[in-house]
Amino acid sequence: MQIAIVLYDRFTALDAVGPFEMLSRMPGAKTVFVAANAGPVRNDQDNLTLHADRGFAEMTAADIVLVPGGPGARDAMKDPLVLDWLRAMDAGSTWTTSVCTGSLVLAGAGLLEGRRATSHWLALDALRDLGAEPTGERVVFDGKYVTAAGVSSGIDMALHLLGRIAGDRVAQTVQLLTEYDPQPPYDAGSPEKAPADIVAYWRSGSGQAVVEAG
Amino acid sequence: MQIAIVLYDRFTALDAVGPFEMLSRMPGAKTVFVAANAGPVRNDQDNLTLHADRGFAEMTAADIVLVPGGPGARDAMKDPLVLDWLRAMDAGSTWTTSVCTGSLVLAGAGLLEGRRATSHWLALDALRDLGAEPTGERVVFDGKYVTAAGVSSGIDMALHLLGRIAGDRVAQTVQLLTEYDPQPPYDAGSPEKAPADIVAYWRSGSGQAVVEAG
Repeated sequence: MQIAIVLYDRFTALDAVGPFEMLSRMPGAKTVFVAANAGPVRNDQDNLTLHADRGFAEMTAADIVLVPGGPGARDAMKDPLVLDWLRAMDAGSTWTTSVCTGSLVLAGAGLLEGRRATSHWLALDALRDLGAEPTGERVVFDGKYVTAAGVSSGIDMALHLLGRIAGDRVAQTVQLLTEYDPQPPYDAGSPEKAPADIVAYWRSGSGQAVVEAG
Repeated sequence: MQIAIVLYDRFTALDAVGPFEMLSRMPGAKTVFVAANAGPVRNDQDNLTLHADRGFAEMTAADIVLVPGGPGARDAMKDPLVLDWLRAMDAGSTWTTSVCTGSLVLAGAGLLEGRRATSHWLALDALRDLGAEPTGERVVFDGKYVTAAGVSSGIDMALHLLGRIAGDRVAQTVQLLTEYDPQPPYDAGSPEKAPADIVAYWRSGSGQAVVEAG
């Protein structure tokens, strides 16, 4: 089970590392970070560097392709190098997936046309403009295309995928070993639940907000 | 608000990146990954490389010090270089924190003697052996010492800290922007909730399990 996690400049780190931590614990999984070129890739806040172990040219197939989000998705979704590589990888993948605004990159490659999908709550309109049918769900399956909402939702997506691929017991084991028993001290993780004025503030400058939030 | 996140060989990536993603979104936060020497540090599964932007010698103070867990904690907790540096940083910190078996490293440095603390559920006995008073809670505050349970619990710890440091609204904003509205498809994230035979299996070889689970 080969898993390719795509990196690009100004990606959001947790978008990539959350599902990475869960998926790569699947027995037999081989997870590789891949970018246009092998080497260091800097995150959205310019304070974290993850290393891409392979360049696009060195990775031509994977069972799972995962695209994280981040402010850099706005550039990645227009970069022919990224889009051509994604289309080629998608042709052979079993699952093509994204977290947060990574779905804008998949949509930019034409892979979500007419499909149910999701993204960061501030990017759902942008996702619609790219031809997908956005939903408010946290994890959306449409055939082999699996998209997750903002940043932290990639962890939930990965557990769903683990269950589909390796069965409930493997997914439960990974959840137990990573002690994923969430107990956030606030209940503000979605626009329906957060204080209305905070939501309104971020909606009012949504372009910038997506840049900030990844 | 200077935040230092410690890296060492065979750390668990989500232990570090989960709280990183939340804490570093605090207004005014300056987050730095630091290791014995600046440069690449490999994770527990040997499939991810994070870069330390500074070596220990280049970082002598921080408001928050965070130690992630991982199989490499077993070595780090005996490494005089790590322990001396942690004690020096702790002398000036406002908050000294850990995720997962990172608490074993803090305890190894003598910082949790007689203190209430937590760790990965498979490492609570080891934590007791090092002089702390382990609890089954997900996030434990004892004065300025804040410890989180396994891997993913660092996200919850970070939100607690954000609330204490910057107030509820900042914490809620970060929760909203990272869309941390957890909806795991299983309820198996703690030994009390997971299928009993899976828990028993991992308890039976707990030393190895900690190695595997970080």
